[in-house]
Amino acid sequence: MADNAAAKKTSYRINASRLLDRLTALRQLGRNAAGGIDRQLGSPADSEARKWLLDCWQKELGLQVECDAIANLWGSLPDQPLQKAIVLGSHHDTVPSGGWLDGALGVLMATEIFQTLRENGVKLRHPLGIVSFTGEEPNSFGVSTLGTKVLSRRLERAALEKLKDSRTGESLATAVTRLGGNIAAIPEPPLGSKDIAAFLECHIEQGRRLFDVGEAVAAVTCITGIYREIITVRGDANHAGTTLPAHRRDALAGAAEVVLAVEHIMRQPEMEGLTATVGHLEVQPNASNIIPGQVLLTLDLRTAQPARRQLALERFTAAIEGIKARRGICIDRRLDLNQPEMPLDETLITALEDSMAANGHPRRRLVSMAGHDAANMARLTKSAMLFVQSIDGRSHCPQEDTNGVEIAQAAQVLLDAVLLLDRRLSL
Amino acid sequence: MADNAAAKKTSYRINASRLLDRLTALRQLGRNAAGGIDRQLGSPADSEARKWLLDCWQKELGLQVECDAIANLWGSLPDQPLQKAIVLGSHHDTVPSGGWLDGALGVLMATEIFQTLRENGVKLRHPLGIVSFTGEEPNSFGVSTLGTKVLSRRLERAALEKLKDSRTGESLATAVTRLGGNIAAIPEPPLGSKDIAAFLECHIEQGRRLFDVGEAVAAVTCITGIYREIITVRGDANHAGTTLPAHRRDALAGAAEVVLAVEHIMRQPEMEGLTATVGHLEVQPNASNIIPGQVLLTLDLRTAQPARRQLALERFTAAIEGIKARRGICIDRRLDLNQPEMPLDETLITALEDSMAANGHPRRRLVSMAGHDAANMARLTKSAMLFVQSIDGRSHCPQEDTNGVEIAQAAQVLLDAVLLLDRRLSL
Repeated sequence: MADNAAAKKTSYRINASRLLDRLTALRQLGRNAAGGIDRQLGSPADSEARKWLLDCWQKELGLQVECDAIANLWGSLPDQPLQKAIVLGSHHDTVPSGGWLDGALGVLMATEIFQTLRENGVKLRHPLGIVSFTGEEPNSFGVSTLGTKVLSRRLERAALEKLKDSRTGESLATAVTRLGGNIAAIPEPPLGSKDIAAFLECHIEQGRRLFDVGEAVAAVTCITGIYREIITVRGDANHAGTTLPAHRRDALAGAAEVVLAVEHIMRQPEMEGLTATVGHLEVQPNASNIIPGQVLLTLDLRTAQPARRQLALERFTAAIEGIKARRGICIDRRLDLNQPEMPLDETLITALEDSMAANGHPRRRLVSMAGHDAANMARLTKSAMLFVQSIDGRSHCPQEDTNGVEIAQAAQVLLDAVLLLDRRLSL
Repeated sequence: MADNAAAKKTSYRINASRLLDRLTALRQLGRNAAGGIDRQLGSPADSEARKWLLDCWQKELGLQVECDAIANLWGSLPDQPLQKAIVLGSHHDTVPSGGWLDGALGVLMATEIFQTLRENGVKLRHPLGIVSFTGEEPNSFGVSTLGTKVLSRRLERAALEKLKDSRTGESLATAVTRLGGNIAAIPEPPLGSKDIAAFLECHIEQGRRLFDVGEAVAAVTCITGIYREIITVRGDANHAGTTLPAHRRDALAGAAEVVLAVEHIMRQPEMEGLTATVGHLEVQPNASNIIPGQVLLTLDLRTAQPARRQLALERFTAAIEGIKARRGICIDRRLDLNQPEMPLDETLITALEDSMAANGHPRRRLVSMAGHDAANMARLTKSAMLFVQSIDGRSHCPQEDTNGVEIAQAAQVLLDAVLLLDRRLSL
């Protein structure tokens, strides 16, 4: 079989120290005093990183770089447009005080693979492309995976034109123009017309499943569904001293029960593979001597199994009704997001697994419990992800880390998977 | 007995419509679109209210008005300094979007009583004084009952000079200078040297004990002790999707248990007369997709009975230790305030009760579960308070209200109590 024949180590070795050097260089852009990276969408460091990538791709790799309408950066050989291309990449923005690898690793690993193949004079059947997407992380414009939401038509121009930076009031259109894009040009000839053959993204796991078993890499089979509610608990703001216990309708005490109900539902044994989190909570009026009158909180529910989400929501509704009835408070629930789970492409997953096996790693598959650009790309083309171990599972924080050994192993697995796919995918 | 002879209605009747007109006029200063009053310490409306009071006292009552070093406003007859005076008053500042009566009622009732006595040509043995204190409410400089804390030497100049507006960064010294005071002059010849004979403050109850029994007034026997902690719950901030339930140390789930423990302790039957509230809570990093790593919250515990506070704190400590042990999270507790209960003066309380009886009201005594300037004044002189009914017990909100009938009844009770005290108190 051609596939088995291909599933062996190639002689094209990635240059791990060059990859790590580039990661270290990009890490300096937006680095704060706490060692975290502040490279949020539209920030000065976002612009600096784009300029740095442009220089790297143009001057060191000799690529042609295109900035599309939503300011995604695309790199390809001057004589090879992205028609039928295999595209590798990720994003270069970060959460506030985020880590050095989330996004950056996928972009610079793509860069390294491109360079290794060129240096070895490898001729692929498919063109090769690199991409760094715009605004993947949650940001102050209120939209994550921005670049791929636009590519996959999940976000149209009319909606984009309404978005503003909640801190500064700047419109998204202005910010995108500053980054080199042009929202007014959307829909530009859609990405679909480029007819990309496949998209592959390497990303840190951001969890501790690989770390706990001491393995380097896994193929991602599915991106979790994310369901989000914004919940408002309303009681009566009143004086903390003069309001007798029997007369209190304390919105924060009610909200505390909501928080614990969410945790309780997640911890039930039949809810394995589901996470449920209250990450955001705001109290009004929030003064030590006033009984809280209103609390706003979020529910974030994730699973790749819709039936499990359904069951969790039924239990949550029952819990909320009980809290309302016992306390005589109001609890309003508003759906904020209902993003279905997204299975990834089996041909790509198999190629990643074959490459893992050829490089001495166990064939391991994981569900991604975080959202990724690869989920939006799966609406356009064959899409898959390679996870690399996160030390202690830490992510979105300055402690986020992966050893150089695992980074190099992941890069080699991805490179060899590209070679496999170049043969396996039809033109 | 002289006292019994005096405990009858006098023929000096307060002018209720004039009092209500002044309350309505002062209500316009700082009034916002929601009908609440924004007259916080140092605000433009604070300055406007001071100018309004100055004009009223000087032009309508012919008083001499003095602004002391912390910008308390004192009114007295030009030929009668405050030596051995009976002083009536309260404060004119409000909480954000507060009510029209908290503070303002006590100041304008004092004004009305002064004017009624002058119009009737009443000669008292003691000089009469009016005061409106600076910054009684919690404010952005982080200190409540500011004016009387300075008078009673609970706050010295060195501490005052460090205070800044947490929103604007303006120093308290600058704000006080703007209001007509001069922190550099502290300690000015202390109030004690004026040797005030007594201080009386009329205030809305801010609770519903009088409202629920349909009575107008009560004498306050004691100002509650206020004990406050700032509590920090520390877990691990982590990704809401990729962190398995078993690996979570969710600071908000821990804080929710703290909130419910506080409520549970307060609701135990043997804790009658004690209130316990978590009014302030802040989550870090407070993003819907990040497990909370840290929560800051306040405990506010009030009772006039130290043994009850002690018991509540023992139970709270036991609850906290349980939460820490079960969840493996850190909970740090820092004492923020430990203000002991302050019994008020029995001679003054009796005079208020005698006046209530003479005016056809039951003799009723209440503990104040809110802090008041009268508690600080009790460190300097005989001090007492008259509570007037609050409709529905609402306070610190635009709905705060009392009917004109009860306002007039309270003013008459206070006027007659002043006449009683003028005879009963030694010179």
